[in-house]
Amino acid sequence: MRIEGKTSLSELRTDPITGHQVLIAEDRAGRPNDFASPESASGDQAECPFCAGHESLTPEPLLETAGASGQWQVRVVPNKFPAVSLGQQEFAQPTISTLGMLPQSPDGAHEVFIESPRHIQDITELSIAELTLVLQAYRERLRFWSTDERIHHATIFKNVGVAAGASLEHIHSQLLALPEIPPVMATELQHSQRYFEENKTCVFCQLLEEELTHRERLVVDADSFVAFCAYAGRQPYETWILPRKHSASFEHLSDADMEPLAEILRQVVERLQAQLSPLSYNLILHTAPFHKRHADAYHWHFELVPRSTTSAGFEWGTGMFINPLAPERAAARLVVSG
Amino acid sequence: MRIEGKTSLSELRTDPITGHQVLIAEDRAGRPNDFASPESASGDQAECPFCAGHESLTPEPLLETAGASGQWQVRVVPNKFPAVSLGQQEFAQPTISTLGMLPQSPDGAHEVFIESPRHIQDITELSIAELTLVLQAYRERLRFWSTDERIHHATIFKNVGVAAGASLEHIHSQLLALPEIPPVMATELQHSQRYFEENKTCVFCQLLEEELTHRERLVVDADSFVAFCAYAGRQPYETWILPRKHSASFEHLSDADMEPLAEILRQVVERLQAQLSPLSYNLILHTAPFHKRHADAYHWHFELVPRSTTSAGFEWGTGMFINPLAPERAAARLVVSG
Repeated sequence: MRIEGKTSLSELRTDPITGHQVLIAEDRAGRPNDFASPESASGDQAECPFCAGHESLTPEPLLETAGASGQWQVRVVPNKFPAVSLGQQEFAQPTISTLGMLPQSPDGAHEVFIESPRHIQDITELSIAELTLVLQAYRERLRFWSTDERIHHATIFKNVGVAAGASLEHIHSQLLALPEIPPVMATELQHSQRYFEENKTCVFCQLLEEELTHRERLVVDADSFVAFCAYAGRQPYETWILPRKHSASFEHLSDADMEPLAEILRQVVERLQAQLSPLSYNLILHTAPFHKRHADAYHWHFELVPRSTTSAGFEWGTGMFINPLAPERAAARLVVSG
Repeated sequence: MRIEGKTSLSELRTDPITGHQVLIAEDRAGRPNDFASPESASGDQAECPFCAGHESLTPEPLLETAGASGQWQVRVVPNKFPAVSLGQQEFAQPTISTLGMLPQSPDGAHEVFIESPRHIQDITELSIAELTLVLQAYRERLRFWSTDERIHHATIFKNVGVAAGASLEHIHSQLLALPEIPPVMATELQHSQRYFEENKTCVFCQLLEEELTHRERLVVDADSFVAFCAYAGRQPYETWILPRKHSASFEHLSDADMEPLAEILRQVVERLQAQLSPLSYNLILHTAPFHKRHADAYHWHFELVPRSTTSAGFEWGTGMFINPLAPERAAARLVVSG
């Protein structure tokens, strides 16, 4: 194929040698960016598509939650510049290749959770009641996709700060629903499934027990949830939050657990803010694939990855990470700042 | 273990669930940084440890190449803040775990190639003769490690610019020699070995043939080397440079090939500079493990990854990449700017 004259290309490609899965998504180059020059947090609220009063700048909502004032408090909309989407998609006729270089259609759904009508940036600016509404919206959208046979997995993630890849500063998260299980989840499932077969128990439950016994990486030990610094954290202060009780799927979380989850999440972010300023981070919800698979072996959790170091040739070349702060030392500092 | 009071921790950890390999390297937190505040390229040559006249600021050289003037032109030294090192290492007594969370000693070698006595930043500021000396130094250090039975693989990489994770701006590369094959190389070897078994030919040779036939991603087509945009490039303008003739190991490169390699490398970087300003990139040398393994199936090459987008929750959560520029469009632009 020749690219000249073609409008935006949209394909999913898998490299035959490296195995990299790459979404070629030229449409996304046109999306708005508060941080067009790396260090300028513009925060131009007059143009923010997520602020109250600017609803016409986003597609029709998939979900709207009413807040205390009667105005919407959480608003879920399709991503206007989606990385993936459902339905017939045109893509370029592939070049004949014996290497299996056959681009796939980038199927899936890409949604945005606008987590407040106010132009704020982080969850510590939400009340516990407001953050609870956000978590309920996560659950509702996961429940929605869990019944769609075309979709096998969904990831919810949040980018806070330029260093974490945020393009808009107004508080929001994203949901990515995919017809295949993405590589990170496939690896976790493989390891947890193998552990389950060998030990007849969930590897995360075992990890929780060990972290609660040794306590050297423990950050918050609450009634229903536990937060600890990850044993092999990829960045300083990488923190995981798990439910104490075994549960593979976030969409099965009970109403009663919603507020305690909001509380521990807020507490962890507050403690991180006390150590890292400004705090940039990615928050990622890891939950089991849909359609009742892996229910015994997997355990949903949040991975919160503060972004203070830049990946370099070392990481790109080896696939390994360098973390200049021991997770035990990070946890000790987070406990003190609690 | 309790971390309080312990001095710098240095361990290699593998997460039992995610499989992440992480070097906990607290010593590295103290290394010098030209870019302590993200956007300030200080360029304070008075303090640069790599400039001529400051040789006492680095360890004793492992290799010194004389330049035209009789002064050293390329100087290879042990990294003063190594991510890995050989020899008996103390590390904390691990917590008892049933999860195989047993930290390993971070064995290996970490070297720095100081590529000019002058305080310059990119290879386009080197003459072809000077860049040839750099490539010869790569080959010499790889030959050195290829005879060490403790070492199974070495990666050479270069970080140019803050966005690519550089901490010092003075032109340099790094070599990381490891007792195990790192994850990125393990995946490439697995795919190329399987292709070889099924097809009795090298997957990279086949890829070269296809790229040279279709030409849609071709950037430079020289006598001994070929450069093309990667089919599943992870970042806009990701470019690979391969020798035409099958060869698994960079250390077997002939003297006659050194200057042509310097030429194509410089040409590719010049073309990238014409498209991206400022150009930040990682250059990574992928070469086969030592001790004559994978000689038929693997094919050494450079991967040059310009860094213009920041990884975000999408990449950390899924392990997939989003590239907003089709590799075919990138190649068309690089050809025009040639």
